[in-house]
Amino acid sequence: MITTIGFDGDDTLWHYEGLFFLTQTRFRELLSAYGADAQVADRLLATETRNLSLFGYGVKGFTLSMIETSIELTGGRISGTDIQRLVNFGKEMLAHPIALLDGARETIERLRGRYRLMLITKGDLFDQENKIARSGLADLFDRVAIVSQKDEATYARLLAADAVPPPAFLMVGNSIRSDVLPVLRLNGWAAHIPYDVTWAYEECTLADAPTERLHELARIDELPDLVARLVRRRKAGGRA
Amino acid sequence: MITTIGFDGDDTLWHYEGLFFLTQTRFRELLSAYGADAQVADRLLATETRNLSLFGYGVKGFTLSMIETSIELTGGRISGTDIQRLVNFGKEMLAHPIALLDGARETIERLRGRYRLMLITKGDLFDQENKIARSGLADLFDRVAIVSQKDEATYARLLAADAVPPPAFLMVGNSIRSDVLPVLRLNGWAAHIPYDVTWAYEECTLADAPTERLHELARIDELPDLVARLVRRRKAGGRA
Repeated sequence: MITTIGFDGDDTLWHYEGLFFLTQTRFRELLSAYGADAQVADRLLATETRNLSLFGYGVKGFTLSMIETSIELTGGRISGTDIQRLVNFGKEMLAHPIALLDGARETIERLRGRYRLMLITKGDLFDQENKIARSGLADLFDRVAIVSQKDEATYARLLAADAVPPPAFLMVGNSIRSDVLPVLRLNGWAAHIPYDVTWAYEECTLADAPTERLHELARIDELPDLVARLVRRRKAGGRA
Repeated sequence: MITTIGFDGDDTLWHYEGLFFLTQTRFRELLSAYGADAQVADRLLATETRNLSLFGYGVKGFTLSMIETSIELTGGRISGTDIQRLVNFGKEMLAHPIALLDGARETIERLRGRYRLMLITKGDLFDQENKIARSGLADLFDRVAIVSQKDEATYARLLAADAVPPPAFLMVGNSIRSDVLPVLRLNGWAAHIPYDVTWAYEECTLADAPTERLHELARIDELPDLVARLVRRRKAGGRA
């Protein structure tokens, strides 16, 4: 029986990856002046992936990876002024207003009180706290957790801290890698709501995931009906 | 009666600021090649302080602030190769081995079991988690909290979560601004252990702090005796 619902933040409750996408477009434009247009996105992803183990997730690490990639791709010819532009891209991302996805607030309000609600979001602590505060949603959650990784160990730790057995937990998010697979592997439930843009690093297939516990939704406002259906089916003795 | 002891991490349990100090020396040397030797430290601090509201605390923000300051101080003349050196300074800081302060582990082991022990550290989530893991101390604490700010609201929230009344809480750390003042203002206790080097931003005077609840220690291994003395005095009916 599902008692607890976890929500991802970025691109599940508020728009986010679009900002990276936009910044990458500006990054490519800036580098095109140096004749370094080709493979900019691939090279940036390679730098980001290589730096993940030191930087973790978030805008500051992304900005440092843009700077590193720009130096690589221009053979060190990029000007100080243009590097400052890259620093400013990062600052603009950090200061960018939060825009909630359609139906996000209403969905949380409908579920609130009937289920224990958690916000589980990954990235820079300071940046995520700012975004959560600016989202205006913080008070609607029973618990807010900002984590550095969304893997099985992280979910297991969060659920244990609140004494929630994984089969009573449903995670809602846009990332197969971070919101779906680790929760399914723990024997929890997942509602996957794809977002228009996905960071290439998060792209992932379901492979051998136990899909009877995974549900695809087109929009977040379909969530209350899904949960009600799952709970009813379980009450009626259904297997999944 | 003190039941709970909070420990700062950086420069209280493990050496840290020395790494920033060393990096700033390398930064000044690098910039001296551009004739930009004067006031490097002041200008870097000004950049860091200006960027705090967007970047928060930590190595990645510090690295971005070094880059910004280098561009400013060289009038944009700094080369891409030298900017990459600054990025590498940041990476070296993030990968640097953790060296515990003398007596840190033994002190925690002596207090463990008799008091509830918390590790309360500020900075980048990912970097702090790595440092805590590498310190080998994580398992000795009843709770580990990584926070973006160490202000009264943060301490109040952490103590409330564990139902610890502030007069039962003693915080141990090297920063007057982050470890001492907010806890004293909540009516808790503080043990201040100065470290050789303090980041200029954290420098702060005690001003009108209620100093009967503040104790200065020279070394962390003096802590168990201090706590025992405070608890005895309280049992004997003393006022503070």
